[in-house]
This record gives sequence, structure tokens and C-alpha cells, in this order.
Amino acid sequence: MPTQPRHRFLQACLGLPTDRTPIWIMRQAGRYLPEYMAVRQQAGHFLALCKNPELAAQVTLQPLERFNLDAAILFSDILVIPEAMGMPLRFGTGEGPILEPPIRNASDVAKLLRPDPEKSLDYVMQTIKTIKNLLADKTPLIGFSGSPWTLATYMVEGGSSKTFSNVKGMLYDRPDLLKTLLDRLVEAVTDYLNAQIRHGVQAVQIFDTWGGILGHDEFLEFSLESMQKIIAGLNRIGPDGQTVPVILFAKGCGVHLERMAATGCDVVGLDWTTNLGEARKRVNGRVALQGNMDPAVLYASPEKIQQEVERLLCAYGPHPGHIFNLGHGIAPDCDPAKVAVLAAAVQNFNGKSSS
Amino acid sequence: MPTQPRHRFLQACLGLPTDRTPIWIMRQAGRYLPEYMAVRQQAGHFLALCKNPELAAQVTLQPLERFNLDAAILFSDILVIPEAMGMPLRFGTGEGPILEPPIRNASDVAKLLRPDPEKSLDYVMQTIKTIKNLLADKTPLIGFSGSPWTLATYMVEGGSSKTFSNVKGMLYDRPDLLKTLLDRLVEAVTDYLNAQIRHGVQAVQIFDTWGGILGHDEFLEFSLESMQKIIAGLNRIGPDGQTVPVILFAKGCGVHLERMAATGCDVVGLDWTTNLGEARKRVNGRVALQGNMDPAVLYASPEKIQQEVERLLCAYGPHPGHIFNLGHGIAPDCDPAKVAVLAAAVQNFNGKSSS
Repeated sequence: MPTQPRHRFLQACLGLPTDRTPIWIMRQAGRYLPEYMAVRQQAGHFLALCKNPELAAQVTLQPLERFNLDAAILFSDILVIPEAMGMPLRFGTGEGPILEPPIRNASDVAKLLRPDPEKSLDYVMQTIKTIKNLLADKTPLIGFSGSPWTLATYMVEGGSSKTFSNVKGMLYDRPDLLKTLLDRLVEAVTDYLNAQIRHGVQAVQIFDTWGGILGHDEFLEFSLESMQKIIAGLNRIGPDGQTVPVILFAKGCGVHLERMAATGCDVVGLDWTTNLGEARKRVNGRVALQGNMDPAVLYASPEKIQQEVERLLCAYGPHPGHIFNLGHGIAPDCDPAKVAVLAAAVQNFNGKSSS
Repeated sequence: MPTQPRHRFLQACLGLPTDRTPIWIMRQAGRYLPEYMAVRQQAGHFLALCKNPELAAQVTLQPLERFNLDAAILFSDILVIPEAMGMPLRFGTGEGPILEPPIRNASDVAKLLRPDPEKSLDYVMQTIKTIKNLLADKTPLIGFSGSPWTLATYMVEGGSSKTFSNVKGMLYDRPDLLKTLLDRLVEAVTDYLNAQIRHGVQAVQIFDTWGGILGHDEFLEFSLESMQKIIAGLNRIGPDGQTVPVILFAKGCGVHLERMAATGCDVVGLDWTTNLGEARKRVNGRVALQGNMDPAVLYASPEKIQQEVERLLCAYGPHPGHIFNLGHGIAPDCDPAKVAVLAAAVQNFNGKSSS
């Protein structure tokens, strides 16, 4: 039997009672922090930072030093998986990621490796070890991966895309080939997340950043199914004997909430286009919910940020089962002082209401 | 009493029986057509083409010459409204539109004009007249406008945006100011669409391209409400004595379908993330539905396009009340031959099923 978690973030993920609603922020370790930019410059470039366990651990902890947050999230990038599968990855200056040559046919897919995370992703495991030592279990650590569909978009397009013409062309014309690619990704991501869990991450989040560009039925067939396979393949008990909750975040997929809640995950992450109170009714206690403030609220005044936090917490209603977060990653041009306001608002509201 | 329409597109908009499902395509007059690119080059640039009634009428008719489509749509741009309200508009080469200086404070909003469409948008009215003469009522003509919220995003950002930080900052910090701007836009758009109707457009579509970036409750308050005001202010009987249907299209807003159907519009346009059969159940005959094939299907083979058309028409079920369309504008890199396949597939399927 897994032991009961003592961190409020993990408690909330499992729908257990908490003293207050926990908060963490997607991309909390990132470009909006000047201390992050300094370390990134020291590393040379983004990918070098991801591959340097000491520096990656350092930036992972930066937001916790500034703000009272309830979880740390491993600093890394979702594209380390395609790279470990054999695709050369680089980040051009000012451009997005480039994965070349892209995956376009059966022979490209056949060439992909099944990475051993302890070898080709050893730097991630070293980063996790370093973070865990620094955290000394004061704050739980979240691991993560991109979803197979989201990773496939980058692999087939050769990087970011506006039209997704290649991967959608493959979806419609060669669904068999796309499914082969997705199954290879299911294997790789499952191995990767299980390795993260072995090394001590206490929760994992699957990011389906591009699920929302799919048609209704295509999302179910080409994204959700792969995520469900991964969840079924995870070892959900960590080395500390505690349950490792799984968080599913698919941007722009609020319409699929019930089906996401039925994948076996513990938490569904929501973007801000879904009303949190309605979402809670729809999942009916089946999973916890994470989210879902519009990151753009952080462009507003401190007073407005406080109001929006309260509005959101009221919309959810009495905890448990809610993890406060933004509905998407924090913007690089965000003022860190606003994040302090946000974190304090979440903590103070709960202090008031749950006494 | 308005007379019954004889065009199947208008019949379908009003939920009347049709011989088959009508089809038109958002951005059907556009960059994917080499003959369009030729006329645009002749005009000099995009905005010059919009302002040249002869050439704008010519490109409006181009897709009808190639494909068997059931409606024409006025060739123009949504940003002619901010320009007519006094904002200098230009389109940089390779960039998006630029509206400078942007609207950022109360004094900027106060300076905006209420355009007389017969004067400052006279070139649009001339275009409509020219198109109507050329069409000779063989095919109905759709007029359109951007929604107040969508127009406001461009006006406050000064053009396109990735983060929408200025307009969202205004929404959260100065909701009163944003509402004043939206009300000015409601007036301008209502006047504009009524003028289009006076000059003979037989249906109007309101495009809320950026409704989907709003939070759940913010969409209702800052976008849907403005669109509802416009609909309430339209003269819905055209000079020919026929009802002028109103189509509401808000991208990424499938979750709000029931509320969109309750605005008083006749048709709701859907993007491809909503299942058409489920949508039909949700609106329950209250409005007709338009859409909703993923434009990316046009990257696939002719066989696949035919299959997807059939799948979609089956998902909707027996007509009436459906207008076939893409779920968003056709991509500039689309092969026109694929559009011919699409149009034929819609026509042939119906020929088969309704006999």
C-alpha cells in the first residue's frame, strides 16, 4: 500500500484534504526571471542549459527561492525525446526548435531509436538527482514529458509550425504511419517517465500542447489514445513508497474533459477557456483539476490579479481536488513581482476561507 | 412577410428544405488561386485591391468560375472598419496588418469616428453593386464584418499579436474602457452591415477570429454580448424582400455553442474541434450549422478528401440546416485541384443520398 503524501500539492493531486489550495506555475523556471537569463547565458544556450545538470537544477530551484510555491518542476525540454531517438536538435537564435531531417516516411520512422533513458537521457536523470538533493524533500518535484502527438508534430514538421501541413497530411493520408510513429513515442515516453519516477520525481505531467489543433474525433484517436497507453504503462509507486500522480494537460481541449478524466490520470490540467466550476461538475470527483488562470491576467494590476485569483478559487469551490496554476505557461515578458502577488493571493485566500 | 429564398444556401441558413447541402469556403477568393495573385499584383497591394471595386468584384467571382460553389463572399478585409474610424492602416510586405498609433487610453477611444458607410466605406458599397451586377442573382452574395472583440484586438495591439498583452491588459485593468471601445465598434459594425444589406448582400457573417483566446466568462462578457447587440440592430429584410440570415463564426468557441445559438443569429459556424453530430443535438434545430472540415484535410489525397466529406455529412445527418464549409479559412498553400475535389464530393454525396 502506498503511504499517504505529506505535501499539499501531492495531497491535492490525489483528491485528499489539504490545508489550502496548492500552487505552482507552468514554466515557473523561465525567461521572465532575470536570474534564469543569467544562468542561461552562462550555459551558452538553451539546450546546453538543459544538458547541464548543475545549472538545470539551479534554475529549477530559482522560482522557489523567490515565491512560496508548492512544487518544483524539472527544468528540461520536451524535445530531448526526439533527440534521444536519433533526430538532430538545435535551437536557432530567435527561432523555435529545429529537428532536421524531419520524419516523413516509413523508413524515417523505422530509423528511430528506442532510447535507454539511463544512457541517452542520463543528463536528465542527473538533473533530477541534483534537484532532489537540493530540495531535501521540502518541496515535491514534478517530472514531465510531451505527449506523443505533440512530439510527433515537431518531428514531422521539423520544428514549430503554423499550418501543421506535414503532420496533418500524414494523419489524413497515412494514418497507419502516424500511428506507428505514435506507438514508438508511447514506448519512449513511458520508459522516460518511468526512469524519472525511479530517480525520484513525485508526480509527472504529460503536456499535449498541440492537442487542440486536432479535429474532435482525431484528438481521441491520435492524441488521447497514446496518452492513455502511457498512463497504463507507468509505475505509479515511487521509490519512497508514495503514489506518483499523473497530470494530463491538453491545451484547447476543454471539450474532451470527461474523456481525459477517464484515461486513468489523477489530475486534468485546464486552460482558461473552461469554467472551473462547470469543469468540477463534469468530472464529478473522478480526478483533481489543475489551473486555470489566463496568463494574461499577470499583465493587470496587483488588485486585479487578487480579484481574479479569488474569482477562480470561488468558481472551483471548497478544496480538495484543486491545484492552482495558470492555464498555459507564464509569458516571458511577465513581471516577476506579479507572480509574487499571485502566489500570495492564493495563499491568503485559503488562509481566510479554510480557518 | 419576407418571401421564401430560392437559393439553396439561403434556404439552408434558414433551416428550410434543400435539394442538397450547399457549400462555400471561407477565404474562397484568396491567395491559393493563381488568378487571384495576378489581380492582386495588378492592384499593387492587398489594401489597394480591397479598395478597387472592379478588381475586388473580379476576385470575388474567381472561385465561382472554377468551382461549383453555392455562395459568393464579398472580397474585403475586416480592418477597413478601424481604418474608417480613423486609424491609419497598412499591410507591410510579409508582415501582418499594422494599425498605428494603437488605441491605448480613453482619449484614443474618444477620437474614433463613427463612419458613415456610404461615405468612408463607399468603395465596399461600390464593390457590392459591381458583384451583384455580375452575379445577376445566379449565386447569393454574403457580406461580412469582424466582431467587435476581434477588431478591438487589432486596434489595441496595433496589428496582429502573439500574446495579446495590451488588449488583455485593458480587459483586466480597464474593462470599462474596453467596453466603451466595444460599444463604438458595435455601432460601426451595425451601420456597416446594414449598409451592406441595403446594397444587396443576401446574408452576413460576423467573424470572431479571436474569441477563442478569451477565458470562458470573458468570452461571454467581452465578445458574445457585443455580437448579440449587433444582431439585434440589423435590418434583416433585404431590398428584395427576403430574409437576410446572420451567421456567427467564433473560432475555438465550440464550448459556447448553445449561447451562440441563443444570440438571435440564424447560423453558427463551427471549427473542426467540435463534432458536427453532437453540435446538431446541442442546438436542437434552433439554428443551422456551418462547417466544419479541418482545412488541413485539403493537404490529403483526393480519396481521403472524399471520405472526410462523407464522414462529415454523415455526422451531421440528413439535411436541412447544414452549410458545408471548412472550419477556418483555406490555407494559401492549398492546391486548387483539391478544392474541386471537395466541392464535387459535397455535391455527389448529396446527389446519392437524397434521391
